[in-house]
Amino acid sequence: MRHPLFPKKLDVAKGQVEMVHGSGGKAMAQLIDELFTAEFDNPYLAQKNDQAVLDAPRGRLVMTTDSYVVSPLFFPGGDIGSLSVHGTINDLAMAGAQPLYLSAGFILEEGLPLALLRDVVRSMAKAARAAGVPVVTGDTKVVERGHGDGVFINTAGVGVLPVGLTAPSGNRARPGDVVLVSGTMGDHGVAIMSKREGLSFETTIASDSAALHTLVATMIQAVPDIHVMRDPTRGGLATSLNEIAHQSGVGFRLAEREIPIEPQVAAACELLGIDPLYVANEGKLIAICAHDSAQKLLAAMRSHPLGRKAAQIGSVIADEENHFVQLQTTFGGSRILDWLAGEQLPRIC
Amino acid sequence: MRHPLFPKKLDVAKGQVEMVHGSGGKAMAQLIDELFTAEFDNPYLAQKNDQAVLDAPRGRLVMTTDSYVVSPLFFPGGDIGSLSVHGTINDLAMAGAQPLYLSAGFILEEGLPLALLRDVVRSMAKAARAAGVPVVTGDTKVVERGHGDGVFINTAGVGVLPVGLTAPSGNRARPGDVVLVSGTMGDHGVAIMSKREGLSFETTIASDSAALHTLVATMIQAVPDIHVMRDPTRGGLATSLNEIAHQSGVGFRLAEREIPIEPQVAAACELLGIDPLYVANEGKLIAICAHDSAQKLLAAMRSHPLGRKAAQIGSVIADEENHFVQLQTTFGGSRILDWLAGEQLPRIC
Repeated sequence: MRHPLFPKKLDVAKGQVEMVHGSGGKAMAQLIDELFTAEFDNPYLAQKNDQAVLDAPRGRLVMTTDSYVVSPLFFPGGDIGSLSVHGTINDLAMAGAQPLYLSAGFILEEGLPLALLRDVVRSMAKAARAAGVPVVTGDTKVVERGHGDGVFINTAGVGVLPVGLTAPSGNRARPGDVVLVSGTMGDHGVAIMSKREGLSFETTIASDSAALHTLVATMIQAVPDIHVMRDPTRGGLATSLNEIAHQSGVGFRLAEREIPIEPQVAAACELLGIDPLYVANEGKLIAICAHDSAQKLLAAMRSHPLGRKAAQIGSVIADEENHFVQLQTTFGGSRILDWLAGEQLPRIC
Repeated sequence: MRHPLFPKKLDVAKGQVEMVHGSGGKAMAQLIDELFTAEFDNPYLAQKNDQAVLDAPRGRLVMTTDSYVVSPLFFPGGDIGSLSVHGTINDLAMAGAQPLYLSAGFILEEGLPLALLRDVVRSMAKAARAAGVPVVTGDTKVVERGHGDGVFINTAGVGVLPVGLTAPSGNRARPGDVVLVSGTMGDHGVAIMSKREGLSFETTIASDSAALHTLVATMIQAVPDIHVMRDPTRGGLATSLNEIAHQSGVGFRLAEREIPIEPQVAAACELLGIDPLYVANEGKLIAICAHDSAQKLLAAMRSHPLGRKAAQIGSVIADEENHFVQLQTTFGGSRILDWLAGEQLPRIC
């Protein structure tokens, strides 16, 4: 007969995270077995080693990492679990890579209800399965009450760059290139802020949190040489474009009326006194390509469910001196979209 | 003339982490530029993308992750920065992999002195350089005062398994195999506890924190078919052997007098009322191999600076029913080394 390692099943419904769950003993082994491994349910984790051995990809690797400290943990359109899968997959996809594997590191605060942790892990597992990118290895640490905040998650991701593809990169924008976005701006940040501030609107504003790798695959199939892709997360569209302007040594000229924004997001931003162009997105991307490819790329984006509202919003201009992001306003004026200077939305992801 | 993005240099000496350092704007960009990228100083990070494109390795990949929440942040023999490099490299090495790349995710608490952060990052960069494993991509989040604890670090690692090598794995221990350890047990955990409790001994007890991949390479060159390797971190030697016993469906018989323990570590453990066999190590490994290869493997370990005190401590026995780890005590008796049941040493890594 097999020795029963855990004679009593983990009480997920009523239990909570204790310091002992981080100490490397039987309680930690049980938490990993009955909660993490059970939810993620894949042959890599089933090996129960401190690392996973993976098939050799054919092509250059792409690697990325993000920690997630979003507050609140659950919000309309997602939660910290699904976000931690989508965000890291998106960082791989922005280099043109096919995401292959994720790791997951949890920092849990003593006292966290196990049922809440189970819900987060279940959502994470569901997002990983839906994206076809398994969580192959993980780690759990526990900190004392008051030294963490429920749950923080780090995910790292590894992907493979198709052979022959020149990876899109922030330093490849050239004057004359066209700037596209895959959809409406500001949804994620406004969803978080609304929930945090207890605001309610006629329509619920949901986060756009989504994995963009299949959209990217569709785009690359249509236009293999996309110069830049970036997901405008913290700091929003304006900050991402400033980063790219700086990396490429160029400027941007955008047309405000072409930038898609949901009416209720625009309304919420007015109420909150924030600019939607600086608000985080978690399921949108910026793509910059040569002028001649732009219509083909835009059509490809619109053919995908996650790019239906894609739009051409402006172009890259020469500006070696200032690297300014200029906005032609709807009312005919022009203003500079500077870097986000102060703190706008803490713990948005 | 180049637009001066950061007209005023980051005041590392007197400054501290503010919420704005996590918000995705200019302050975050400056922190990353002047502190992280400057210290890590490699061409991957210099690209300033949200991910790194890496050369294609020849062979199967190995991936791992660990979060580090050790308290205190600095301790004799290391700090959270060097530990976060060594620990993740070791998890790769335990699969027989050559470590290639690291990612780094920081969760910073508002108010953390920048000088302290700089020291941590500098130590991390130094450890990565010494090991020849670059930090290729990173992420920084900031949480409000009282919702974190100074700095938490996650590192994920990617390595490559030499072509033709069967990876050592926790489920490959077979009755008759020999159990080796690479050196003295318990040094890391006792160093942390002594610092935390303000204990002082005649000799300072230093953590054994070290990257073991060159030791592992030496070992594999001598004996390619090592069945199991594991670094006995949280829960120590006893817990790691219980895990392996469970994975492989075997038992262990160890000789207490053969297990190397520094006299001052043994003395400190008595004072603290803890068993050194359950105390974390951060620069030691367990190796299990066929009886016929054991002497060759032991000699290879002893030929390396990190394995000078390597020892043969016991053997794998058949125990399909209980998977017990049995210890023949120095005084002729025998006891079962069970899994660590309670919480022994919180936040040891």
